[in-house]
Amino acid sequence: MATNPNKLSTEPYKGVRDFYPEEMSVQNYLFSVMRSVAERFGYEEYTASILEPSELYEAKTSEEIVNEQTYSFEDRGGRRVTLRPEMTPSVARMVAGKRRDLAYPLRLYSIPNVFRYERPQRGRLREHWQLNCDIFGVRGIEAEVEIIMLASSIMKRFGARDEDFEIRVNNRRVVPETLQVLAERHGLTLTEDQVAATMRLMDRKNKMPAEEYAEKLGQILGEEVSKTVLLTYNSDEVLDVVRTTESGIQFFELLETLQVRGLSNVVHDPTLVRGFDYYTGTIFEVFDSSPENRRSLFGGGRYDNLLEMFGTELLPTVGFGMGDVTIRDFLETHALLPAYQAKTRLYLCTAGSEFIDEANALAARLRAEGVLVAVDITDRKVGDQIKSADKKKIPFIIVVGDEERATSQFKLKNLITGEETPLSEHEIPQRVATTEA
Amino acid sequence: MATNPNKLSTEPYKGVRDFYPEEMSVQNYLFSVMRSVAERFGYEEYTASILEPSELYEAKTSEEIVNEQTYSFEDRGGRRVTLRPEMTPSVARMVAGKRRDLAYPLRLYSIPNVFRYERPQRGRLREHWQLNCDIFGVRGIEAEVEIIMLASSIMKRFGARDEDFEIRVNNRRVVPETLQVLAERHGLTLTEDQVAATMRLMDRKNKMPAEEYAEKLGQILGEEVSKTVLLTYNSDEVLDVVRTTESGIQFFELLETLQVRGLSNVVHDPTLVRGFDYYTGTIFEVFDSSPENRRSLFGGGRYDNLLEMFGTELLPTVGFGMGDVTIRDFLETHALLPAYQAKTRLYLCTAGSEFIDEANALAARLRAEGVLVAVDITDRKVGDQIKSADKKKIPFIIVVGDEERATSQFKLKNLITGEETPLSEHEIPQRVATTEA
Repeated sequence: MATNPNKLSTEPYKGVRDFYPEEMSVQNYLFSVMRSVAERFGYEEYTASILEPSELYEAKTSEEIVNEQTYSFEDRGGRRVTLRPEMTPSVARMVAGKRRDLAYPLRLYSIPNVFRYERPQRGRLREHWQLNCDIFGVRGIEAEVEIIMLASSIMKRFGARDEDFEIRVNNRRVVPETLQVLAERHGLTLTEDQVAATMRLMDRKNKMPAEEYAEKLGQILGEEVSKTVLLTYNSDEVLDVVRTTESGIQFFELLETLQVRGLSNVVHDPTLVRGFDYYTGTIFEVFDSSPENRRSLFGGGRYDNLLEMFGTELLPTVGFGMGDVTIRDFLETHALLPAYQAKTRLYLCTAGSEFIDEANALAARLRAEGVLVAVDITDRKVGDQIKSADKKKIPFIIVVGDEERATSQFKLKNLITGEETPLSEHEIPQRVATTEA
Repeated sequence: MATNPNKLSTEPYKGVRDFYPEEMSVQNYLFSVMRSVAERFGYEEYTASILEPSELYEAKTSEEIVNEQTYSFEDRGGRRVTLRPEMTPSVARMVAGKRRDLAYPLRLYSIPNVFRYERPQRGRLREHWQLNCDIFGVRGIEAEVEIIMLASSIMKRFGARDEDFEIRVNNRRVVPETLQVLAERHGLTLTEDQVAATMRLMDRKNKMPAEEYAEKLGQILGEEVSKTVLLTYNSDEVLDVVRTTESGIQFFELLETLQVRGLSNVVHDPTLVRGFDYYTGTIFEVFDSSPENRRSLFGGGRYDNLLEMFGTELLPTVGFGMGDVTIRDFLETHALLPAYQAKTRLYLCTAGSEFIDEANALAARLRAEGVLVAVDITDRKVGDQIKSADKKKIPFIIVVGDEERATSQFKLKNLITGEETPLSEHEIPQRVATTEA
């Protein structure tokens, strides 16, 4: 198509999406499953504005995100404002603001849109939606168990089977403890910097070849310790090492309880670290388990100290965030997305403009019975009106004309099967409620 | 409360709102009524990003809004981007982008949040949500009739009676025609500038004393014509004047058809103009009719030329936008907002941590039956657990303990009435579904 420089483009802003009705119906499907499962677990919905004071992110969100990836600007009054890149700081702010008025354990969910200035690519857009579920006020592992059960239940409600995804679990405290125990075998003690650098490296482990990982690990820990780490750093060894520490014992208990509660697809991943700095204990990440596409789908963890930045006492919290783009991609890959259906069930055509009053009156009575019905008010040929209904994927039509006016009998046509059924008005609502294909 | 300068504030950004669960449930109520009525009329949902190229607003949105009230900034790649101040340019962009793939008449709705940099005051915030309904592709008055019927149906579904609100209607073409006819009585012809200035003045008529309005009108039209306008510019006179023009005749027809379709609260307001420049014909505005509070609630109109800016051929369109803040205010004033109810129906307390597995298993079975149920996993005193349920306004509780484990019989307590009912598990879903108060 030739572009005229005087005309505005119809493209959306770079890296964001337009949702026409068919796309919107996919979003609504994703959100309705998320909502329905979260609400069955007793989570209550909240939301906040996408506009937040920039200070909110400068304390705890990762520096890379704040400095390179936020949408931040000054408003006309000189206030620094940021489009939220994630929801956790907002919910922490809200809970801190009503710390004493809220009842604990507090269960909250929201499906906000969040913004990152990134180069758009598969699975990464500048705006996406993200289910956030958080439980506040529970110190013990029952909070982790519930949050992981909830995450798993959502996957299953989407139609995924246990074998379609894997829940990898780790603990942020267990990692440094394990590294220290391994270093001690060589009579060494690691510095905080060494531990932190190792964790940052682990976070990027899957993004580099094994040799590069080994080399970088050697640079951080020295040859001896890094060899021990490379040799023994697997799930069984690590669990043996940590059996003696407090966080290790708790972590064991978590893995066992998840088994007892019936989750068969949980594995311990000792190198799982996750990017956000605010996690303080358990972390988890859900992976697509199809061999050709072992991608991380979403994750979460425990963050007990986030409310500190508001001067509020500590509030133990566990939560996760599940993005729409990745989940949609997963559902498409596994053929789990339902086919599009127009919500509108019935389209009333008119055999001439003199029947438009009549068709509208019929529509009003059907709407009162809960029928989703559109009227063609264009006074075109009936064939063109039917084509519109068909293009919109509305399953049923009725043409209102002389005969219908005289007899109050209607011919209901199913546009999918072509079948025509004569019926009277009171039979319409039930007949259009389901599509017999 | 003393503020510590090192601590972050828990306040949201100026002029926007936090939605805690009780506030959120009001929003969800507003949105669900809007959605349900729009969908019964066959409108399909769409949405777009809040981020739009700034150019989109520079052509047609009012200059005051673009220059003083938008949130606009440059992104990190040097693109000028604006947080949408209204939805109409976005939907026009989307429809223009798929002009030939869409089926007409096209009925679309969305409930976007929109942003304006304004001094926050009653009814005016920097972010608000706004139902937008538009019908594309209908040239005649049937489009106006449907859109006005839809707006009225939403008001009624909210519980408003015909006498609670008034629908004021006018036509942007009728105004200049009428002014010219009145000027001709004095042998004069008004310039385009005079007509435009008069319409801008009319738009602000209710914001100034009658004397000031008369004085300013005199300055624009001259003493003679302005006197005639002031004396004869009422509904009946104007309708007599325009009976002869094409837009006048169409406008008459619209008023009559609205009567025929049963709308008793429609009035012709000859000074109604509305701020946006893109309206090309019919305009309407819904007013609260309570004498102490005759405020405009929302409005809309016909805009046939908006797609032109994308180089697409003309597409006749009628639509309206209904804001959440004003509607909520109206519903509060008229005592039409439903009381808050937690969505969660049942709270399972445990008589000790040894029953948490059991309570979770029971919860899982009840969730499979569709019950919205939360489990107290804190291992606190039962009394404290019940207090949490009560504070959350959850209507029912069950305490899981030794007896329940042994007998599989439960005592369901209604926290509103205090009543206790013994029952077995399979009776729970139905009993907690409704609250007998």
